[in-house]
Amino acid sequence: MLTGFKILHKDGNARVGKLKTLHGVIKTPNFNPVGTLGSVKALGPRELKEIGVQIVLANTYHLMLRPGVDLIEKLGGLHKFMSWDRPIMTDSGGFQVFSLGVAMEHGNSKVLKRNKEKPEDFKKKLKLNKRNALNTTSRPRLNKITEEGVIFQSHLDGSKHTLTPERSIEIQRKLGADLIVAFDDHESSKHTKDEILKSIELTERWGLRSLEEFNKPLRIENQEFPSKDFKSKNNKQIMYGVVHGGTYKDLRVRSARFTDENFDAIAIGGIYGDKQKLRQVIGWVTTEVSEDKPRHLLGIGEVEDLFNGIEQGIDFFDCVAPTRRARFGSLYISPKNGGQTDNNFTISIRQSRFVADKKPIDPGCGCCTCLNFSRAYLRHLSMSSEILYHQLATHHNVYFITNLVTNIRKAITDKEFLKLKNEYIK
Amino acid sequence: MLTGFKILHKDGNARVGKLKTLHGVIKTPNFNPVGTLGSVKALGPRELKEIGVQIVLANTYHLMLRPGVDLIEKLGGLHKFMSWDRPIMTDSGGFQVFSLGVAMEHGNSKVLKRNKEKPEDFKKKLKLNKRNALNTTSRPRLNKITEEGVIFQSHLDGSKHTLTPERSIEIQRKLGADLIVAFDDHESSKHTKDEILKSIELTERWGLRSLEEFNKPLRIENQEFPSKDFKSKNNKQIMYGVVHGGTYKDLRVRSARFTDENFDAIAIGGIYGDKQKLRQVIGWVTTEVSEDKPRHLLGIGEVEDLFNGIEQGIDFFDCVAPTRRARFGSLYISPKNGGQTDNNFTISIRQSRFVADKKPIDPGCGCCTCLNFSRAYLRHLSMSSEILYHQLATHHNVYFITNLVTNIRKAITDKEFLKLKNEYIK
Repeated sequence: MLTGFKILHKDGNARVGKLKTLHGVIKTPNFNPVGTLGSVKALGPRELKEIGVQIVLANTYHLMLRPGVDLIEKLGGLHKFMSWDRPIMTDSGGFQVFSLGVAMEHGNSKVLKRNKEKPEDFKKKLKLNKRNALNTTSRPRLNKITEEGVIFQSHLDGSKHTLTPERSIEIQRKLGADLIVAFDDHESSKHTKDEILKSIELTERWGLRSLEEFNKPLRIENQEFPSKDFKSKNNKQIMYGVVHGGTYKDLRVRSARFTDENFDAIAIGGIYGDKQKLRQVIGWVTTEVSEDKPRHLLGIGEVEDLFNGIEQGIDFFDCVAPTRRARFGSLYISPKNGGQTDNNFTISIRQSRFVADKKPIDPGCGCCTCLNFSRAYLRHLSMSSEILYHQLATHHNVYFITNLVTNIRKAITDKEFLKLKNEYIK
Repeated sequence: MLTGFKILHKDGNARVGKLKTLHGVIKTPNFNPVGTLGSVKALGPRELKEIGVQIVLANTYHLMLRPGVDLIEKLGGLHKFMSWDRPIMTDSGGFQVFSLGVAMEHGNSKVLKRNKEKPEDFKKKLKLNKRNALNTTSRPRLNKITEEGVIFQSHLDGSKHTLTPERSIEIQRKLGADLIVAFDDHESSKHTKDEILKSIELTERWGLRSLEEFNKPLRIENQEFPSKDFKSKNNKQIMYGVVHGGTYKDLRVRSARFTDENFDAIAIGGIYGDKQKLRQVIGWVTTEVSEDKPRHLLGIGEVEDLFNGIEQGIDFFDCVAPTRRARFGSLYISPKNGGQTDNNFTISIRQSRFVADKKPIDPGCGCCTCLNFSRAYLRHLSMSSEILYHQLATHHNVYFITNLVTNIRKAITDKEFLKLKNEYIK
């Protein structure tokens, strides 16, 4: 049973707690920036620490393809590889292989959206044809799901790989992550209720297999991070089970109960739909699971989501929003500078109105970027595709969200959560 | 007359000195990293200071096109714009407009080489046709040189601009640079001796016009950097005249004498050809100019060039090599780790032999990158096109060169310059 999580304060359902890991204690609620390939884009470990980042999330799927898990293990684990001595979370890879399969078939795969590639072009790029593609429908589907696991083709070169619950957990443990996630199947918003039921049943069976693998003694070669202590006491890693069920209450409740029965930590996955639906889903799940287990909302983390999630008792978030938004010129501003839900609390720095703006991105912000550089300079760097733009912009966005969550923790402690929320969400 | 430069030590012709500017004293010899658009690619002011960078060079041509000089002036000058309170040097723009003209015609323009664009494609991109191009030869020529100055088309959008000696100096003073360069014409390696003579005669007339403009009282609006003191005493800026003359001794000598007669600081421009030719040219010039004036070798700065230039009495270098090399995976290593002239003192980090290499880029190097990250990690970041790669790699390369020049200064002071040179150049 998990003993490393402790709730310290509550304000309504919002809670402040701390989670003990091998690489330090994480204050909750917390936002985990995403470092897909073992680096948070444009931020080194030193900048992350200066910002106050407590933990980063790396992607199992991406790291297994590049540079490969055995290599990272050989080099001493992911902490040492990326020179980061604070906690790391890895995901199961389930979402990414989902993106290669049914999501691509249904036209809502991030792989396609992000690359802005037409299915045909993508298919061509990966040399997918009737002979070697795993599926021959007109939209390329790069995975095949069986009871055993998922066979998929790399989005990089079309090479074939297999992820099973056992393999996913083995990888996440070899990487040396502090928080890991049980391997899960994913529903699509276009699936019927019956299909989603079948999917969560598979997630349940995979969850139990993930647990069995997790409870095996751990043998990691050449591992310098974490400590020797870690090698023998594998339970110092914490594994999340994932609640699925689409937007169906009975399915979410069933999945929540199963996850709570079997896992020490609760992740909520497979979320789609509008903010109201998201609120409902979180509500259905949080009322079903134990109070004393950490709860992670997977892949979600816009400003509004943070307030709504924390209000309902969510402890952890991860999302590419701050880093990706920065790269595309979307920079966070607080309500006093015009930030609101309608503009996602952002300005678009590339707009011509900022061409001679001497103000920092978010006047009053204490980040290194805002203390030293003007909107005019940031706009110039962005328009000129200067690399420094990414560093300064990403620094600001990650600081903004990290600092916001710090303020939320303080507000909960002071029983002023709703007051703070009302300043942001009208 | 220039009084801010003082030679402190000599070892043969190599010299250690200091140059006083409005934004601080620069120890010489020194290497000036290039921040073309008002940012050294992938390094912020804080990182530059940590590395020990004393001065950066920004490009007049690029800044006048983007974001525009009037804007930078309005925002308080270049120092404030880029949040850099140490010295800045700007160039005259002469070399860049040269690249748009005869260099392009002769097929040795950096604009073409860098973009890897065929002349036809480039012409098409800038909508250059017989009607609006400044020249209608088959290779597009984007400038037209007259006695008055250069009319040129922007490499960005084809828009027309004019640079004259007066305009170049006005821009450089509006930017608030500490060290500036007189406007000069450039020879091509394919020019005849007669053509080069005509070119240096034009450079001489432009040099005198640059001086006249430089000696006019300065009016800069809204300038917060440099100080008020600067506004009234314009001579606190230092202007280099530029020595040209190709690889002809008599022309170089003539140009050197003219420059020494009229200017307080000597820049050597228009250098091409092999290392031996470069050595000769430097020798012809340095023997002709006053001992007590700073000497800058424009656009040159590989490891071998630093040793050879400093040995002949050069005080300043600028070059995109460390920053550009970093971006393309070419990282500096010292002789004890295999660095030599044959490999330009670099390794190519993308080579597969580094895939599992736990060592830092240059074992023994004291930079933040080498103290924290392995070659394997750098290679992974580079292969995955992670932005963090550029930050870490550029940090190392600029540190390597900056640290090398610091060691050279020490060696000169200790009368051990040749000993250090022999460790590098066999």
